[in-house]
Amino acid sequence: MAIAYQGHILFTKQPDRFEIHENGVVIVDEGKILEVLEALPENREGLEIFNMGDRLIVPGFVDLHFHAPQFPNLGLGLDKELLPWLEDYTFPEEAKYSDMEYAESVFTRVAREIWRQGTTRVVLFSSVHKESTELLMSIFDRAGLGAYVGKVNMDRNCPDFLVENTEASIEATRAWLESTKDKYPRVKPLITPRFVPTCTSELMRALGDLAEAYDVPVQTHISENQAEVEWVKELHPESADYTSVYEDHGLLGDRTVLAHCVFNTEAEIAKMAALGVFAAHCPNANYNLASGIMPVRQFLNAGVKVGLGTDVGAGHKVSIASVMSTAIQASKIAWLNSDRTLAPLTTSEAFYLGTKGGGAYFGKVGSFEPGYEFDALVIDDHRLGVTEGRTLEERLQRFLYIGDDRDIVTRFVSGDEILEPSM
Amino acid sequence: MAIAYQGHILFTKQPDRFEIHENGVVIVDEGKILEVLEALPENREGLEIFNMGDRLIVPGFVDLHFHAPQFPNLGLGLDKELLPWLEDYTFPEEAKYSDMEYAESVFTRVAREIWRQGTTRVVLFSSVHKESTELLMSIFDRAGLGAYVGKVNMDRNCPDFLVENTEASIEATRAWLESTKDKYPRVKPLITPRFVPTCTSELMRALGDLAEAYDVPVQTHISENQAEVEWVKELHPESADYTSVYEDHGLLGDRTVLAHCVFNTEAEIAKMAALGVFAAHCPNANYNLASGIMPVRQFLNAGVKVGLGTDVGAGHKVSIASVMSTAIQASKIAWLNSDRTLAPLTTSEAFYLGTKGGGAYFGKVGSFEPGYEFDALVIDDHRLGVTEGRTLEERLQRFLYIGDDRDIVTRFVSGDEILEPSM
Repeated sequence: MAIAYQGHILFTKQPDRFEIHENGVVIVDEGKILEVLEALPENREGLEIFNMGDRLIVPGFVDLHFHAPQFPNLGLGLDKELLPWLEDYTFPEEAKYSDMEYAESVFTRVAREIWRQGTTRVVLFSSVHKESTELLMSIFDRAGLGAYVGKVNMDRNCPDFLVENTEASIEATRAWLESTKDKYPRVKPLITPRFVPTCTSELMRALGDLAEAYDVPVQTHISENQAEVEWVKELHPESADYTSVYEDHGLLGDRTVLAHCVFNTEAEIAKMAALGVFAAHCPNANYNLASGIMPVRQFLNAGVKVGLGTDVGAGHKVSIASVMSTAIQASKIAWLNSDRTLAPLTTSEAFYLGTKGGGAYFGKVGSFEPGYEFDALVIDDHRLGVTEGRTLEERLQRFLYIGDDRDIVTRFVSGDEILEPSM
Repeated sequence: MAIAYQGHILFTKQPDRFEIHENGVVIVDEGKILEVLEALPENREGLEIFNMGDRLIVPGFVDLHFHAPQFPNLGLGLDKELLPWLEDYTFPEEAKYSDMEYAESVFTRVAREIWRQGTTRVVLFSSVHKESTELLMSIFDRAGLGAYVGKVNMDRNCPDFLVENTEASIEATRAWLESTKDKYPRVKPLITPRFVPTCTSELMRALGDLAEAYDVPVQTHISENQAEVEWVKELHPESADYTSVYEDHGLLGDRTVLAHCVFNTEAEIAKMAALGVFAAHCPNANYNLASGIMPVRQFLNAGVKVGLGTDVGAGHKVSIASVMSTAIQASKIAWLNSDRTLAPLTTSEAFYLGTKGGGAYFGKVGSFEPGYEFDALVIDDHRLGVTEGRTLEERLQRFLYIGDDRDIVTRFVSGDEILEPSM
């Protein structure tokens, strides 16, 4: 039986404008969009109807970069840059995830907060620990949210209490892929070398081979910080640039997502576009760690696929709506810094990045076009101000800038209504 | 009878560090701080004791720049720069405040939202309308919040439906000062030329005279946008710079607050320091209107008094806590843009700006030193994560980055507990 959701429907088929259906209807069948109509059809046989009234129905938010074990550090240690921040806050916290009880208490809160903020699909870093990574996957499966989850690999340049033996890291990853690849419908594993400085060539090559053998995607970091970029040059003089290090180890392709991309060269951007690599733009984290501003417009102009990431915990906001407004703000500074050559992001472009842009990493996700998964949020914006005389685009813009989790009344993933994860 | 508030007490006597009293006691008498103690005194006679438990007690937030009539535009129109944004959003909205019923409905919501977000003192722009400005003052008086409120003056370069006749503007301002100067204990008028482009020399000079005659402070805008700075140069070739235009009309002194200060020259900054002029840093607005980043460190190095402003409606956040984290983020980009010469703001510095820094505009406000007004917030941060193992400074930092109005449980102004303003 198909389902009809009535309400004000907004989504971005393309970045430069919203598709808007005032008092429209989205028809969903088996969790997927059949079509969006201006009104209920004449023939309503076999159609279950839910009327959301004067509310906004929009695609669920997609977060391409989130470190689950860093959640307890949210809003802490942000007077530091990347490398000292890793030493002082991140690595000590990540060491705790050998303790399954601790992992369960944190990851349950992570799932609940991601649910609360309206994110319906997320690409997660776990820690190096195989067991707690499996636990994280089971918690997201139980929550009903869509996720790629990565067991982190690192076998150099990190503290003794976290560093992996190369062989053991590869074997644990293989065993974990075996046990989780087909275990859950919406939660899948992906290969996750932390970043070049913490992974030997041997490890990276083996991970590239595993990604190919098991046909799973890849996530990692790139060019977040200038000192990091210099370090990678020293570590890998044999590769043309940072992006090429990943390429040279079989880790770069159309299912790879690279977080940050603040300092990529034009050649790297062109390569990312040519190979279909995704960029995860994480403006809050890039501000907080004093890294810089990713020139998003340059990536969009080059045809790179771009989505948004919260980068919890370097980013302090779990809400992708908040990341959208921060991305717009950052793009305005990038515009000023570029002699006004890199045009600022518009509201519809930022919304696109946080829905369909990142959603493409999951398949047909993040839009309400026919065939797309029905991942959706129902938003009641009456708390935020007067609605009379406001266009629907203004009402959505206002929610993105000043709304929060209190305004999201219902969430759907692949057509299923998702209730608050139990604790 | 003196009152003792027990709890975790944090404030910034100076910018570079927090004063922290774990399980401390702040003693308040007649609305003012007597002292802060490590524990309850032996002799508790004549002392009423309130135990706030495992909560944080911090100074109330101070907002140096807020346009009350722009509140309905919160989160709207932010794909525009300053001058078109004024034309398309701000001026049409401000015209509505000749309607007292409309004004009352908006200003009541303004007071409630400012209360909700923990701001205890605010410097407000009203509109050009004398009657609704008086209404705004009475609403803030009834709410119990501290405020300076300005009837806006403008007699050129603004739409017909808002422009004032010069003489009428001066006379309305004089009458308004007469009627409100001594009317309320915590709500006071201040002289408010909108900014140079909208005020003739004749008007500015008369407003300078009124400020002196009635001994009231002054607020206005300066150097928010490059096009605006150029325009002011064309309008006033006789003055050395933008700051001098205000000085030349008797509007610059130690009770003047200038909002924005993105493009002030070194000479202007030195003059502001010498005269004791306040700068209101409004990073959200400067981002949203693509203006730029105020180099706050330069002002602090020069000894200028700096506070924070939300600049609602160009700024979309009413929370000064949120402005603090945005100010820190902006200062990190200013650091990168200045070849790492302008050091980023630390958390304690941003907190200082949003409490004692701006509070100085109101007298002894924004700190818990003896003699200061007891303006305070009680914060319950247990919603935000585990508190065990966290320092009090980390707990406050976390609230500033990820907390919101839900975490503020009580507010005080001059010793009075302030309840939610009625609608």
